[in-house]
Amino acid sequence: MEKPISDFAPTDANRVPRYADVATFMRAKAIPLEQVGDIDVGIVGVPFDLGTVYRMGSRHGPASIREQSRTIKPVNFHTKTAPYDIARIADLGDAPVHPLSLDVSFEIITDWFNQVRDHGVRPLVLGGDHTLSLPVLRGLARDRAVGMIQFDAHSDTSDEIRGSKLNHATPFRRAVEEGLLDPKRVIQIGLRGSAYSADDYTWARSVGMTLITMDDFEEKGRAAVIEEARSVVGDLPTYLTFDIDGLDASFCPGTGVPEPGGFSMRDAMVILRGLQGIDVIGADVVEVSPPLDIADLTARNAAFLGFELLCLLASASRDKH
Amino acid sequence: MEKPISDFAPTDANRVPRYADVATFMRAKAIPLEQVGDIDVGIVGVPFDLGTVYRMGSRHGPASIREQSRTIKPVNFHTKTAPYDIARIADLGDAPVHPLSLDVSFEIITDWFNQVRDHGVRPLVLGGDHTLSLPVLRGLARDRAVGMIQFDAHSDTSDEIRGSKLNHATPFRRAVEEGLLDPKRVIQIGLRGSAYSADDYTWARSVGMTLITMDDFEEKGRAAVIEEARSVVGDLPTYLTFDIDGLDASFCPGTGVPEPGGFSMRDAMVILRGLQGIDVIGADVVEVSPPLDIADLTARNAAFLGFELLCLLASASRDKH
Amino acid sequence: MEKPISDFAPTDANRVPRYADVATFMRAKAIPLEQVGDIDVGIVGVPFDLGTVYRMGSRHGPASIREQSRTIKPVNFHTKTAPYDIARIADLGDAPVHPLSLDVSFEIITDWFNQVRDHGVRPLVLGGDHTLSLPVLRGLARDRAVGMIQFDAHSDTSDEIRGSKLNHATPFRRAVEEGLLDPKRVIQIGLRGSAYSADDYTWARSVGMTLITMDDFEEKGRAAVIEEARSVVGDLPTYLTFDIDGLDASFCPGTGVPEPGGFSMRDAMVILRGLQGIDVIGADVVEVSPPLDIADLTARNAAFLGFELLCLLASASRDKH
Amino acid sequence: MEKPISDFAPTDANRVPRYADVATFMRAKAIPLEQVGDIDVGIVGVPFDLGTVYRMGSRHGPASIREQSRTIKPVNFHTKTAPYDIARIADLGDAPVHPLSLDVSFEIITDWFNQVRDHGVRPLVLGGDHTLSLPVLRGLARDRAVGMIQFDAHSDTSDEIRGSKLNHATPFRRAVEEGLLDPKRVIQIGLRGSAYSADDYTWARSVGMTLITMDDFEEKGRAAVIEEARSVVGDLPTYLTFDIDGLDASFCPGTGVPEPGGFSMRDAMVILRGLQGIDVIGADVVEVSPPLDIADLTARNAAFLGFELLCLLASASRDKH
Amino acid sequence: MEKPISDFAPTDANRVPRYADVATFMRAKAIPLEQVGDIDVGIVGVPFDLGTVYRMGSRHGPASIREQSRTIKPVNFHTKTAPYDIARIADLGDAPVHPLSLDVSFEIITDWFNQVRDHGVRPLVLGGDHTLSLPVLRGLARDRAVGMIQFDAHSDTSDEIRGSKLNHATPFRRAVEEGLLDPKRVIQIGLRGSAYSADDYTWARSVGMTLITMDDFEEKGRAAVIEEARSVVGDLPTYLTFDIDGLDASFCPGTGVPEPGGFSMRDAMVILRGLQGIDVIGADVVEVSPPLDIADLTARNAAFLGFELLCLLASASRDKH
Amino acid sequence: MEKPISDFAPTDANRVPRYADVATFMRAKAIPLEQVGDIDVGIVGVPFDLGTVYRMGSRHGPASIREQSRTIKPVNFHTKTAPYDIARIADLGDAPVHPLSLDVSFEIITDWFNQVRDHGVRPLVLGGDHTLSLPVLRGLARDRAVGMIQFDAHSDTSDEIRGSKLNHATPFRRAVEEGLLDPKRVIQIGLRGSAYSADDYTWARSVGMTLITMDDFEEKGRAAVIEEARSVVGDLPTYLTFDIDGLDASFCPGTGVPEPGGFSMRDAMVILRGLQGIDVIGADVVEVSPPLDIADLTARNAAFLGFELLCLLASASRDKH
Repeated sequence: MEKPISDFAPTDANRVPRYADVATFMRAKAIPLEQVGDIDVGIVGVPFDLGTVYRMGSRHGPASIREQSRTIKPVNFHTKTAPYDIARIADLGDAPVHPLSLDVSFEIITDWFNQVRDHGVRPLVLGGDHTLSLPVLRGLARDRAVGMIQFDAHSDTSDEIRGSKLNHATPFRRAVEEGLLDPKRVIQIGLRGSAYSADDYTWARSVGMTLITMDDFEEKGRAAVIEEARSVVGDLPTYLTFDIDGLDASFCPGTGVPEPGGFSMRDAMVILRGLQGIDVIGADVVEVSPPLDIADLTARNAAFLGFELLCLLASASRDKH
Repeated sequence: MEKPISDFAPTDANRVPRYADVATFMRAKAIPLEQVGDIDVGIVGVPFDLGTVYRMGSRHGPASIREQSRTIKPVNFHTKTAPYDIARIADLGDAPVHPLSLDVSFEIITDWFNQVRDHGVRPLVLGGDHTLSLPVLRGLARDRAVGMIQFDAHSDTSDEIRGSKLNHATPFRRAVEEGLLDPKRVIQIGLRGSAYSADDYTWARSVGMTLITMDDFEEKGRAAVIEEARSVVGDLPTYLTFDIDGLDASFCPGTGVPEPGGFSMRDAMVILRGLQGIDVIGADVVEVSPPLDIADLTARNAAFLGFELLCLLASASRDKH
Repeated sequence: MEKPISDFAPTDANRVPRYADVATFMRAKAIPLEQVGDIDVGIVGVPFDLGTVYRMGSRHGPASIREQSRTIKPVNFHTKTAPYDIARIADLGDAPVHPLSLDVSFEIITDWFNQVRDHGVRPLVLGGDHTLSLPVLRGLARDRAVGMIQFDAHSDTSDEIRGSKLNHATPFRRAVEEGLLDPKRVIQIGLRGSAYSADDYTWARSVGMTLITMDDFEEKGRAAVIEEARSVVGDLPTYLTFDIDGLDASFCPGTGVPEPGGFSMRDAMVILRGLQGIDVIGADVVEVSPPLDIADLTARNAAFLGFELLCLLASASRDKH
Repeated sequence: MEKPISDFAPTDANRVPRYADVATFMRAKAIPLEQVGDIDVGIVGVPFDLGTVYRMGSRHGPASIREQSRTIKPVNFHTKTAPYDIARIADLGDAPVHPLSLDVSFEIITDWFNQVRDHGVRPLVLGGDHTLSLPVLRGLARDRAVGMIQFDAHSDTSDEIRGSKLNHATPFRRAVEEGLLDPKRVIQIGLRGSAYSADDYTWARSVGMTLITMDDFEEKGRAAVIEEARSVVGDLPTYLTFDIDGLDASFCPGTGVPEPGGFSMRDAMVILRGLQGIDVIGADVVEVSPPLDIADLTARNAAFLGFELLCLLASASRDKH
Repeated sequence: MEKPISDFAPTDANRVPRYADVATFMRAKAIPLEQVGDIDVGIVGVPFDLGTVYRMGSRHGPASIREQSRTIKPVNFHTKTAPYDIARIADLGDAPVHPLSLDVSFEIITDWFNQVRDHGVRPLVLGGDHTLSLPVLRGLARDRAVGMIQFDAHSDTSDEIRGSKLNHATPFRRAVEEGLLDPKRVIQIGLRGSAYSADDYTWARSVGMTLITMDDFEEKGRAAVIEEARSVVGDLPTYLTFDIDGLDASFCPGTGVPEPGGFSMRDAMVILRGLQGIDVIGADVVEVSPPLDIADLTARNAAFLGFELLCLLASASRDKH
Repeated sequence: MEKPISDFAPTDANRVPRYADVATFMRAKAIPLEQVGDIDVGIVGVPFDLGTVYRMGSRHGPASIREQSRTIKPVNFHTKTAPYDIARIADLGDAPVHPLSLDVSFEIITDWFNQVRDHGVRPLVLGGDHTLSLPVLRGLARDRAVGMIQFDAHSDTSDEIRGSKLNHATPFRRAVEEGLLDPKRVIQIGLRGSAYSADDYTWARSVGMTLITMDDFEEKGRAAVIEEARSVVGDLPTYLTFDIDGLDASFCPGTGVPEPGGFSMRDAMVILRGLQGIDVIGADVVEVSPPLDIADLTARNAAFLGFELLCLLASASRDKH
């Protein structure tokens, strides 16, 4: 018999001050994956950054995002979504990783997300570098290609770097090749900056992905981009991935490759609030590197984005019941 | 006989470099309250933060804001207001506080602002946590309810927290109950974020306050919100309160509960410049916590907002002469 | 039936990297007090700082010390003590506190340590400001006065501050008055700095406490001071309290009142290692204020001191079995 | 015989990771001025800040901007400009300065830019305080007045400060007086903040400069301001100067006089991209003070602006061939 | 008639919390030089750093040292000296400086210290870079050569740097040449580091100064060095100068040229306490650069050293009465 | 024909200020390895950190150490060694690394140090994590086992971590196994902290290494340890390796595993100065992680240690000529 939703309330700030006790995400209940049973949404850290080419540190991202999430109250003031009232939510801790081996890590992360899938849990993933979206998708999308909405300064669809096929510049090329993503149902929003060559994103376009640069975003406007995203992914299962460097660099000093000229937090939160109703089967927020951060600014923003993603996951879960 | 305005010029940067000497606000004249005699506008620190529920430190706000105000020149380039040419302005130092007792502090702060009122001084208050607006209003509004324009991410009209009726989530509920504020003449701008429940602000609306969320703000536009604020408070005496967390979190890392998605400094300054002509009887800028700040960013923004408030106070003073 | 010690091993870094998962102290097992049953040593946070007179923030101490303890391996290289091999150790989370009321907090903290005492657990307390040693002692020493070794720049035996009898300058005066401490069995080490008057510590001396200033410490030398401490407390139950400001200010920027000219970490650790064999019934490390810290330096030092205290507590527990 | 452009490729990130080796700007080739021969665009640091009135430190600007430019890839994603494919670009190191004498520094900097001019090189100058634009112009504009597009919170056309005619508040008054700038072809964008008096910019307007305040900028819109700038400078030789404090203070904590309410990085980059086709004979980005910076935020933004300027310089160079 | 000492008590922390009000040094009374009348010891800031060759910022030293001195209580716990009980002490504010001209600054600083001398005040000078000791001595020692005890990593007796005779590497060569210092009565303690050549300090030795390197200091021991210093300066008028870089670099990150391997704060404070009884006619603590500091560590140490110097000045003043 | 030593003078600070131009180590001449010809000592960065188990970032170490070395003057004040007067010294830039592959990196680093060996250059290596000492030794010690003096909190002689034989806990076990080190001629100084088990260092002792813990160091004293080190390595070729975490944690916040209770910088520098005369064939300073550093404290200390190592290398080179 399923446990009732009320069993999964986060710690009440009127009983335990926000600064007290160890921090799970939003002070949600901590339940290990092996004991999780029937829940709807699970928060998962993936402290993996071995796919990073330039500045590392996102292995410490999950701990920092959880710490900064202490401040978030349980109801979304703007959409009135109350995720803990409509879904059974728990913090499952971190997926396993190997500190020295990308290959071993990929294997054990994939295996773990296969179990997440087996439990029917929609995960909110806290990264970790962007490479990790690939083993997550290998679990969640193992039996059919899914759609994806990606917030990012970069497309992350390169073919390889110095012979390496698995790193944080390549995950979505691999995911398409492996049939995990349906490129026609993929939209990337926020692309900008400098490039290796004028054709950096030719491949992404050639397989049918929709690319929205920051110039496009400004020209079309926020509402139109929300509509376009909804239209690209439609009603079918969809993954959401938010690379924190999609934000303007002033909102994310603590990331490996900050790019000026991106989204404000207001932009990001409003767009995410506009995605209600999509069948979000999982989501991640990645590339938060606490050693590069200042005053926890980046991790705090990631926590707030994580909350918006959690609202989407909880709503999607309720809609499917 | 009144002293002339020219007696109250701030330190001239062409004579004493900005980095020299102890910092009063904008390097205004330092005059203790008991010697202040007939001035028009007085800068007052209230180093009080015992009403804080989560992250403290705003007791150090006044010292830090004064330090950061060294850089401000005496004339407002945008409105051409020259406060030191139209009003007698002095820095009165800090109001008294007790470091361990909220109750004693409330008593002595209230008493102090009663004296401020007795002197006919319009105060610019540097906080301190938002609870302090209550003892300030107990002094300034002791004989009639005033209007208020509040910039804030939160309404601060809760009833209580764990039995405490006096803390930084409740001051304006108390102020209405005590007849210090006329709720019909109160407008709150910038509300957003997460909430304890979907009805967090029911009370504020029920007593007639006007609430402008960030969604409203974006939809209406800056000019319309300025007009609405002017219309709500009208020509009668009005208090201005600026919780620094009304700003987007990227502008105020040094505050207890930063909320992404708020005003830019440009927004805030333009709105304040649009409030010329209102009978501003006092104003505060609060919730600046230097131990949480980085590179004095928050305190510097508070100093610039303080300058805009000073321009309004000086103009209001001149208009009433 | 008692659970075996092997049930209480901390997370193995060869299985889960140090940066993964939520941080309990040294990644010890997390067990709530109400489920704790029969353990020997319990780590407890007390996120309380309402007794602070100047710079606050130690309410965030427990979370930060736990985070910094990730790096500590389970065996003491110098003394060969392996606490997790000789005692059942768990992290019990935080004691309850009220964010706005010193009085309520004292009541519920005292009640909580009464339960700790009922369970026969020797606590390692992570603070929090120094006032908290009083409610801890009210629980642990409720039935007989205990001895105490205190590391501190200040004696904390003032009578009152502005009428307040309970604040971080007074706990050990109160503890003596309440019969919780036997002043003849109290030694304070590290006293130094500036004073309100030349007789600041007259009371402490008058009731029989042993005071070791930094001048004394330097003159006598480390080994002699260790002997003196052992001799003062003898074989009877003894509490250890380490105010982080006992360290030289360069080792603890993140504390309210840093005092230059104190212990090095080497001094502190060697002294603590020299206290093996004392019947340590509880211990605390206090006054770590993360908002004032830089690069987690102070919290990391507190974590290492906590480990030395844990070794003493585990040894004392084993000796009593 | 001229060397081919392909001889001047910057270090390839696919061969040498971005974090390796000493940092020239964008890892361009390092060639001393005396060996430079025939190149088109030269990057030059001017580590001079002796003209600073308030907070110093921009002498360290060139080193920090170069370090932060490691992350920039060689092609402009938005304009498709590939500067290293269309021009011979090298990093010439720093111009000479005297650490204690403004007068000597002016002399040797001027002499150095005379040589730059002799070589026909278009320099990208990394400052340094804004005073340095004057000796740069003395070299580049020695034989005819040029136009200028200035991004700045302040006009920098004061007459003197305490008897000093040469400091960072006066360079462009001097440049007009010396016939280096044609004031009719000068436009200043971003002016705002506080002023010494209501007529601070009377002189600038009186000689025919076009001044765009932030209020003007907001009212006209970005596209109109781009057109106005193009129209003011026309097809004749033009200098570009970007005082980093033209940006909103949240984008440049590391500058002497941060002013809130300015450009976002998006604004700045889009405007610069809109200036393609102008005959840019030289450009600078100034007032980056690393000791005041946090997490290299200001220097990184300066590096990105430097890249946009480099694209303009390379394009102008190609157009003139 | 002289005012009694009791008129010059600093602000009482039991009445006004340490974090309240504007910070003078130790919250001493603020009295401008022109009104100072008959006091014994005056605290003076000299916000001058135009003699700096490498990293600047000590112009902000006085403000930061004053801010950090809030924490110091009025009595020296170790020597039992109570400066405010034995001397009339006031904070005179800052000496005048010109922000762009070393020459003008020297003139007006000298003139100011001539007035200090005229008033018979023993100054505690807060710097500023080390060059400023020269104009201070030009005032204080105008009529006879004095002795000096210097704590410093460097001798500061170079002849010139690139033609400049006045900079922070040369003040004490100039002071000897001008007859302000009697080199036989000068002792320099703490010399170490790297040098331009093996004979860097030949001149200092040739004129009879006593030089104690860190190697000497370690070999002789603290007590012997104290005796040597006392013996070198004898009973005649003596100036004390403490370059903060005399401390080990870990105690002074916020200085222009930090040198590892120097004094601990314990060393420095114990030596200063050992100098009681010398006729200290003035003292300075210099080279604190707040923009380079972290968590105010350097400024705080300077404040504590300033307190020790204040005890010496007050004692010397009493002894001469 | 060999070039004279005078061709290899570093940049003169009297000509080019310390803050100017790109930073090589101590502003030595930059010469690529392939052009280096006949020099004696070469500075080499190895920006490699893929052997790190916990906190990364030392890939950025070489750039940061070089930047901080600007301040060092060319002569050692304590030993009178003038390295640039007795040896031909150049900065060779960085060894090649692969950002994603430990195995490829090992291969190309080894190959590079084979070339260094071929050129007869004694390298000063700037790391990078401690794993890199292995490929360095594979080059330098390819034909005979050498001795080694290691400064370190940890022995780095583990066998493996989770199956990985090559990481920063294992390099010297591998080096002994591969015949690169003669364990009888290896001494490790500074060992301390916590351990995985009581027999962590059994292997190191079993093969004949000499281990000096911090307890040993304190008991024996600095001079005796210097003698012991000299005696262990004798006159034969010897490698020096300085893991920055050998320093007390307060001197190296910017390292992966800071350990309190270690050497002061004074200790470290005096010991290194005591090693003159040993045949030092190469040396490294490793584990400096700039993203974890504060105010460049760790990198600056590494630069000063690098200078002491450079003096040893230059002296050894001269002695062998």
